[in-house]
Amino acid sequence: MKILTFGEMMLRLKPLAFERILQTNTFEAAYGGAEANVAVSLALLGHDAAYLSKFPENPLGDAAVGTLRKFGVDTSRTLRGGPRLGMYFFEKGNGVRGTGVVYDRAGSSIATATSDEFDWSTLLKDVGVFYFSGITPAISKELEIALKSALDYCKANNITVVCDLNYRGKMWKPAQAQVVMHELMPFVDVCVANDEDFEAMLGIKAFDGDLSNGICQIEDFREGMKEITKRYPNCKTVASVLRDINSVEQSDWMAILYQNDQFYDTPIHNVNVMEGVAAGDAFGAGLLHGLVNKLEPQETIEFAIAASVLKLSISGDLNLVTEPEIRSAMQKGANARLSR
Amino acid sequence: MKILTFGEMMLRLKPLAFERILQTNTFEAAYGGAEANVAVSLALLGHDAAYLSKFPENPLGDAAVGTLRKFGVDTSRTLRGGPRLGMYFFEKGNGVRGTGVVYDRAGSSIATATSDEFDWSTLLKDVGVFYFSGITPAISKELEIALKSALDYCKANNITVVCDLNYRGKMWKPAQAQVVMHELMPFVDVCVANDEDFEAMLGIKAFDGDLSNGICQIEDFREGMKEITKRYPNCKTVASVLRDINSVEQSDWMAILYQNDQFYDTPIHNVNVMEGVAAGDAFGAGLLHGLVNKLEPQETIEFAIAASVLKLSISGDLNLVTEPEIRSAMQKGANARLSR
Amino acid sequence: MKILTFGEMMLRLKPLAFERILQTNTFEAAYGGAEANVAVSLALLGHDAAYLSKFPENPLGDAAVGTLRKFGVDTSRTLRGGPRLGMYFFEKGNGVRGTGVVYDRAGSSIATATSDEFDWSTLLKDVGVFYFSGITPAISKELEIALKSALDYCKANNITVVCDLNYRGKMWKPAQAQVVMHELMPFVDVCVANDEDFEAMLGIKAFDGDLSNGICQIEDFREGMKEITKRYPNCKTVASVLRDINSVEQSDWMAILYQNDQFYDTPIHNVNVMEGVAAGDAFGAGLLHGLVNKLEPQETIEFAIAASVLKLSISGDLNLVTEPEIRSAMQKGANARLSR
Amino acid sequence: MKILTFGEMMLRLKPLAFERILQTNTFEAAYGGAEANVAVSLALLGHDAAYLSKFPENPLGDAAVGTLRKFGVDTSRTLRGGPRLGMYFFEKGNGVRGTGVVYDRAGSSIATATSDEFDWSTLLKDVGVFYFSGITPAISKELEIALKSALDYCKANNITVVCDLNYRGKMWKPAQAQVVMHELMPFVDVCVANDEDFEAMLGIKAFDGDLSNGICQIEDFREGMKEITKRYPNCKTVASVLRDINSVEQSDWMAILYQNDQFYDTPIHNVNVMEGVAAGDAFGAGLLHGLVNKLEPQETIEFAIAASVLKLSISGDLNLVTEPEIRSAMQKGANARLSR
Amino acid sequence: MKILTFGEMMLRLKPLAFERILQTNTFEAAYGGAEANVAVSLALLGHDAAYLSKFPENPLGDAAVGTLRKFGVDTSRTLRGGPRLGMYFFEKGNGVRGTGVVYDRAGSSIATATSDEFDWSTLLKDVGVFYFSGITPAISKELEIALKSALDYCKANNITVVCDLNYRGKMWKPAQAQVVMHELMPFVDVCVANDEDFEAMLGIKAFDGDLSNGICQIEDFREGMKEITKRYPNCKTVASVLRDINSVEQSDWMAILYQNDQFYDTPIHNVNVMEGVAAGDAFGAGLLHGLVNKLEPQETIEFAIAASVLKLSISGDLNLVTEPEIRSAMQKGANARLSR
Amino acid sequence: MKILTFGEMMLRLKPLAFERILQTNTFEAAYGGAEANVAVSLALLGHDAAYLSKFPENPLGDAAVGTLRKFGVDTSRTLRGGPRLGMYFFEKGNGVRGTGVVYDRAGSSIATATSDEFDWSTLLKDVGVFYFSGITPAISKELEIALKSALDYCKANNITVVCDLNYRGKMWKPAQAQVVMHELMPFVDVCVANDEDFEAMLGIKAFDGDLSNGICQIEDFREGMKEITKRYPNCKTVASVLRDINSVEQSDWMAILYQNDQFYDTPIHNVNVMEGVAAGDAFGAGLLHGLVNKLEPQETIEFAIAASVLKLSISGDLNLVTEPEIRSAMQKGANARLSR
Repeated sequence: MKILTFGEMMLRLKPLAFERILQTNTFEAAYGGAEANVAVSLALLGHDAAYLSKFPENPLGDAAVGTLRKFGVDTSRTLRGGPRLGMYFFEKGNGVRGTGVVYDRAGSSIATATSDEFDWSTLLKDVGVFYFSGITPAISKELEIALKSALDYCKANNITVVCDLNYRGKMWKPAQAQVVMHELMPFVDVCVANDEDFEAMLGIKAFDGDLSNGICQIEDFREGMKEITKRYPNCKTVASVLRDINSVEQSDWMAILYQNDQFYDTPIHNVNVMEGVAAGDAFGAGLLHGLVNKLEPQETIEFAIAASVLKLSISGDLNLVTEPEIRSAMQKGANARLSR
Repeated sequence: MKILTFGEMMLRLKPLAFERILQTNTFEAAYGGAEANVAVSLALLGHDAAYLSKFPENPLGDAAVGTLRKFGVDTSRTLRGGPRLGMYFFEKGNGVRGTGVVYDRAGSSIATATSDEFDWSTLLKDVGVFYFSGITPAISKELEIALKSALDYCKANNITVVCDLNYRGKMWKPAQAQVVMHELMPFVDVCVANDEDFEAMLGIKAFDGDLSNGICQIEDFREGMKEITKRYPNCKTVASVLRDINSVEQSDWMAILYQNDQFYDTPIHNVNVMEGVAAGDAFGAGLLHGLVNKLEPQETIEFAIAASVLKLSISGDLNLVTEPEIRSAMQKGANARLSR
Repeated sequence: MKILTFGEMMLRLKPLAFERILQTNTFEAAYGGAEANVAVSLALLGHDAAYLSKFPENPLGDAAVGTLRKFGVDTSRTLRGGPRLGMYFFEKGNGVRGTGVVYDRAGSSIATATSDEFDWSTLLKDVGVFYFSGITPAISKELEIALKSALDYCKANNITVVCDLNYRGKMWKPAQAQVVMHELMPFVDVCVANDEDFEAMLGIKAFDGDLSNGICQIEDFREGMKEITKRYPNCKTVASVLRDINSVEQSDWMAILYQNDQFYDTPIHNVNVMEGVAAGDAFGAGLLHGLVNKLEPQETIEFAIAASVLKLSISGDLNLVTEPEIRSAMQKGANARLSR
Repeated sequence: MKILTFGEMMLRLKPLAFERILQTNTFEAAYGGAEANVAVSLALLGHDAAYLSKFPENPLGDAAVGTLRKFGVDTSRTLRGGPRLGMYFFEKGNGVRGTGVVYDRAGSSIATATSDEFDWSTLLKDVGVFYFSGITPAISKELEIALKSALDYCKANNITVVCDLNYRGKMWKPAQAQVVMHELMPFVDVCVANDEDFEAMLGIKAFDGDLSNGICQIEDFREGMKEITKRYPNCKTVASVLRDINSVEQSDWMAILYQNDQFYDTPIHNVNVMEGVAAGDAFGAGLLHGLVNKLEPQETIEFAIAASVLKLSISGDLNLVTEPEIRSAMQKGANARLSR
Repeated sequence: MKILTFGEMMLRLKPLAFERILQTNTFEAAYGGAEANVAVSLALLGHDAAYLSKFPENPLGDAAVGTLRKFGVDTSRTLRGGPRLGMYFFEKGNGVRGTGVVYDRAGSSIATATSDEFDWSTLLKDVGVFYFSGITPAISKELEIALKSALDYCKANNITVVCDLNYRGKMWKPAQAQVVMHELMPFVDVCVANDEDFEAMLGIKAFDGDLSNGICQIEDFREGMKEITKRYPNCKTVASVLRDINSVEQSDWMAILYQNDQFYDTPIHNVNVMEGVAAGDAFGAGLLHGLVNKLEPQETIEFAIAASVLKLSISGDLNLVTEPEIRSAMQKGANARLSR
Repeated sequence: MKILTFGEMMLRLKPLAFERILQTNTFEAAYGGAEANVAVSLALLGHDAAYLSKFPENPLGDAAVGTLRKFGVDTSRTLRGGPRLGMYFFEKGNGVRGTGVVYDRAGSSIATATSDEFDWSTLLKDVGVFYFSGITPAISKELEIALKSALDYCKANNITVVCDLNYRGKMWKPAQAQVVMHELMPFVDVCVANDEDFEAMLGIKAFDGDLSNGICQIEDFREGMKEITKRYPNCKTVASVLRDINSVEQSDWMAILYQNDQFYDTPIHNVNVMEGVAAGDAFGAGLLHGLVNKLEPQETIEFAIAASVLKLSISGDLNLVTEPEIRSAMQKGANARLSR
């Protein structure tokens, strides 16, 4: 089953080791973006994953597209053209210093694309699952419009729609986000809602926003998840990651899947975080893997959280791991639970 | 005497060694831009050099400003704010493969600055020489307006105006450039005109554009230089670099100074080019050094061309050399002439 | 038209800059091999290029396959399994020190593959051109057998067969090579014969082997090329590169195409060699590009030699250039001829 | 208010990552030294900070001075000349292996400077605060003499004198140090005394020297701090950092400020140490920031310890952080206290 | 006393930092192998250590031999020749992702050596201690035969034989290993048995194989150690390391020495693991150091475990530490015990 | 025959690629020094070469000694102790910018050694050839005294004395050098005199000092060489390298051997210089190789110059080449002659 993900992929520039931008004279280059990360994970897990975005016709665009292809993603549906590749500068934090990001994505090829560049009947041909995150409609009004057309097409053609709410406070404010999401959510079949997504994206109070303390608010999360399915009855599956982030390096992670009025909880993984980025995308891909392959709900959510915590050990935005490695991490989580 | 230069400074990202953007996963970071390069050269030569631009309030802006300060440039007059730092990707060529540049400077802080942000009576206080290149008015209409105000102020306050024509075909076309320069040139006291500048910036046919063959067109250059002083009588000094670029690595360089109806030619330097960028800025700074220090015209132009060819041995945009090193290179040029 | 190339791709490990293996503690990793290089070049030129080899099921095999995919090569026909990825250590020479290679390719997955692993009716399905070099039959007896089956299939199905003779003295001796090639050549439609290939691979005396002096033996080359078409009448197209290698850094290159009893010569390119590896593969790909696209013979051979000399400016085994870049290098060659 | 700091700045050479000197072939270069680090921190916090030392007239001296300038330090008062730049080799430890230092600072330009090179009436012109650490008088007898002249000048001109005792056992022994400090302390207005400083520098028994166990000796620290103000009544402000260093990576840090017979304690920061160097200098600069800006004592000491623990996340000797980042770390400390 | 160690040394290729093989384009090169690591440790501790293996006559062989010589190992007895140097790719894990190894050692010079290449009367001349690990007989049948001849010679000449059982599941299976070891053990005087060695190499059930839980099985270890001395009465000394590996980064380590019917236990070291490789070899060398220098048993085993945990802080396979550094780590262990 | 070389070995720190010290933040570390370089070359050529100096007891001293051992030099006679390892910073030039060196060798362990630390009867035991360069007596008066004692011992024990005059203008002036050398030369059996050595070290006018023009002064060189043997009749063999250095990258090199009243000239090698350092030491070692192995004079000097020009292709101070590689370079030189 072909899975198409739709969003923005950027050049990520990171100073070596723990250097700051102010002091470095070398940047490590990588390419990533929420929906692209999901596509790469799915391809590495053996799925027929395609990615849709718009890349400039220059070597940076070529490198981004090449990165997707390297890991098996079908890039034949992506658009080329426009002014530039978005990018972001990434300073890895440690100890009391948090990780920092300087975005430089305005005016990118995808951000300046118009909705009529997307011919959904062609782009979604033979697609079984369409995936986007809340970042995509935040990029531009045109992308919001394009997305709506896509969802209409999905509805009409029985394509499953998966959305990771993925609120980004630097891109839009809750008031705007909620208006947009309120239009899109009725089309969503599977929803991933983490951390501040409930409130910022949907206006549902579920989590008080204290990332050092997510897991003990598990009942609030459950209420929020139920509320999503109540408000948007088309959405029958909701998944959430709960986290206690103790420091840049130390965290506890678990996940919940809500499906058919039932909750499936994973054990808590106590993790050492080497690079705390894109773990949510790894989770989304793991979830999709379970859903598409029709794994049991408990196995599905355990697979998803294991994929997610494994990402924390990988450099770059892409979760370059294999299915056996994820399954091995699942078992560590199981052990972890037992030993508590 | 305080010298103020005005323009755009960018982050330069270069793949390691001779790698292409498409294949690299590491970029070397440096900061440069025509007028900033001139300011750094002047500061290293002991002048009181200040730089004016607008840098974002983020670590990239801090790093650019810090780079200027490191080499002794006064950055107290520069503006801060705006969306982003312009940047460019730089692929060093070799053999039959030319050096390549991917610009990503649209929407930068300086490009989006408005003319009224520049309070010239403050910015030009105690300034003796004002330097800009033809890149500055090409950046935006607002900068063109700001520049005109600056030149008015200079005229009224006896500040010497120096302009390196510096045509950039990726930024504007000759037709536009000529209209703008025709307004600015009447204020210019010292003009640097190289290669295609004569025609593209001023509409003067002087050089046929064949960079492998500049030196044997020396008489055409002389005519062009005279023509400038005829058209713009305020401009009493014109300097040009003539080049035979044989390959990415091998070139011959010489320069001519035209002053008070007299031509001063330098010997030809046969140079091995390690990094062929910003040599024109090194030339402009060397010229200014001679003019400000009232060196003899022959010494001035020999100093300028030596500074320029020395730059070809330095990594990055900045000509990190000392006056004794330039003087030593001058002597090599003299020898070179004798041995021909 | 689908083009399938068949051979061995290896991990290339190169000490940084000009370090020797004995002194380095860092190796740059790249992946390449004659036929893989050709496939990548063809894909970058817009062809539907597929590659056939056998890669181990480990991260090194994944990385090699991923490299091919990154640049657009179809890897769906390649085999996976076996013990290891072949590799070679590459010491870049300079001045009087030649480039050195330490091969470590024995026992690789492709070298230990058996002929019955290759189901040619599937592998060559819809293929219009089949490409191999003389390295492939030198790898093992089983590959020689597999190749013969492939050629039989090609003959029976009107698939054009292209062979770059590519003699490798470290893999077999002329006596062995000639026996094998004598069996294979009758199936070859297009043959690339360079340097010592004539004698070592076919037993034809054409070139005395002095690489500092190839171009002035042009008439001998022509005789050799004619002789190939005489001996193997199926082979109607022969192309050769002639070189004067003056030092590790300086060379002159030209090429000849022989087709329909006519010779087409390119101008001589005087080139600065940054990395003297895989230029022959770039030539072969350029030749195929011209033949498949039915360019004029003169344009075809000029395109091929330009692709080849451009490769000398690129790091790694793969000719990461675009068609416009090759066309630009063609013009430099034309100029070069005129200026002599 | 201009703040002048006086000491030695060195080239720091560090093997990559966790390599040992014995095995590395690459050193990362940085420049630092206690008083230079303080000056950089102050400049980054917006103060008018100047640095005084003596640097050789060579590229290493230029690079050190340029580093100061890059981060905004006024270097116009520093001396140039003398034989060499002091340096030290830095091996970052981990786990059970402690961080190692090989000093190579003998015979440096500042160590061989004579006291009459320092014309204090010029050097201290318009200075409001003079800062030195106990390292400065340990460098040479001449510097000790110079320092005494400076302190005399400060006394006569109402310049506040701040001293971080900073005992360095590799430079002198307690007996020598105590004699010298006994002469200098009567001029000191603000004193930073950490760890073994009390005993080694002043002969006051306050702390038993066990760095894994400093915080539980808080009452001994208080006694020591009081004792300093009793012995040297001019010194009305004393600040100390108390630490439990559990391993190279894990520590607890807190600080006490003693002012006007009152103690102000910070919360305990539990920190992950990325690079355990120059945190004391960051503390001193934070303290000065609070004192100069007349912050409340409690805010001052909390700011100072936050600056200090933040340094542990930064590569190199310089605390390249912003005031908002320090204030954010202060709040984490507050939280930390609450959660205990 | 000359100590000869016998085994295989390989090139180790490791991606930078935490990169995966799949994503890296740079490998760090190091050379190591169990018995070579022991020889280097012994040489650094002042012993006359020699190493025996067979290295190819190429730059990789030279580099491996040179590495041994650099750290003082006598390589005059080692053989040269054969096809290649074995190698392995090493991916450093972190958090939930374990460290990964891709072996590529088949067909190496030592693996293809024949037993008659080893002239033991020459090779063991003046040798007092002969050391090998269980890896050596696993490499090939010929090496197994060579080893038996060596042990016969040792027996006849009163050379002490030390064996670290060192089971490697990727090289052979317990059934094979036990047959071979049953022949070799009667010659062994000192045996190191860790983790799964008891069962896999000797068929003794001592440890359940759960590496997160070794220390609490201390009594089972003691039984296993006694059993070895019972079965092989020539073996009067047995040493074991017991570990609780909590994560890639966190472990507890202790060791037991069994000698003359007595057990000597070390304190538990709680360690932060930077690179978890070759710690067993460091342990074996520390043990040998104590035995050869006739230290007290308690001091011997504490020295050995301290050497071992110190290795976890060192990059590469070689334990590049000094005796004083090991003794300092011993004291930390003692403290650790006290503080529990 | 054991060959002992005596001098100073330093840490060499070089910015990456062509960076300047002022701009780099990474130094490549290597270890070298004239006499150490000779010892390494000899060991690589199969000689029993030992090195004598004094190294500090710290990791830098260990690394320097380890480097010697790695390449097979016997370091058992070298002294350990003293304050520091000398070092130098090396900026590789290109084009018109010459290579630059910043020495930091004052106060090193060898420079502060006293003459009585050298017990020559032990140090020279079983030595057949003693080698030093003119740098050694320039280091300190004590080393000059030590050297005289060594030469006395050599004379009395029939040890051949070889001296490369090696004038270093940054270490002493001709007047001093000539006094010292006048005392030492009567003991010298074989003398290498290059470039300015004749005049600066011996007061013999032979070469006008113009390095762009050495070869055409060949007759002056011959006169100078004869003059040496006339003045110091014990010196029966003199060798010189003659060079035309055209640019940092391009040179012509040849050599002359004068022995038994006869001159032996090599062909001229036209060389591309990658790193122009330590070629003289490579020459000296090549000469010694011929003399010790009693090669014919013509072969000896051709071997020496080939070793020297080959060094220009190697990174670092050490000529890491094999005898076959030198012999291959000899043949290129021979060809070069023929083709002229």
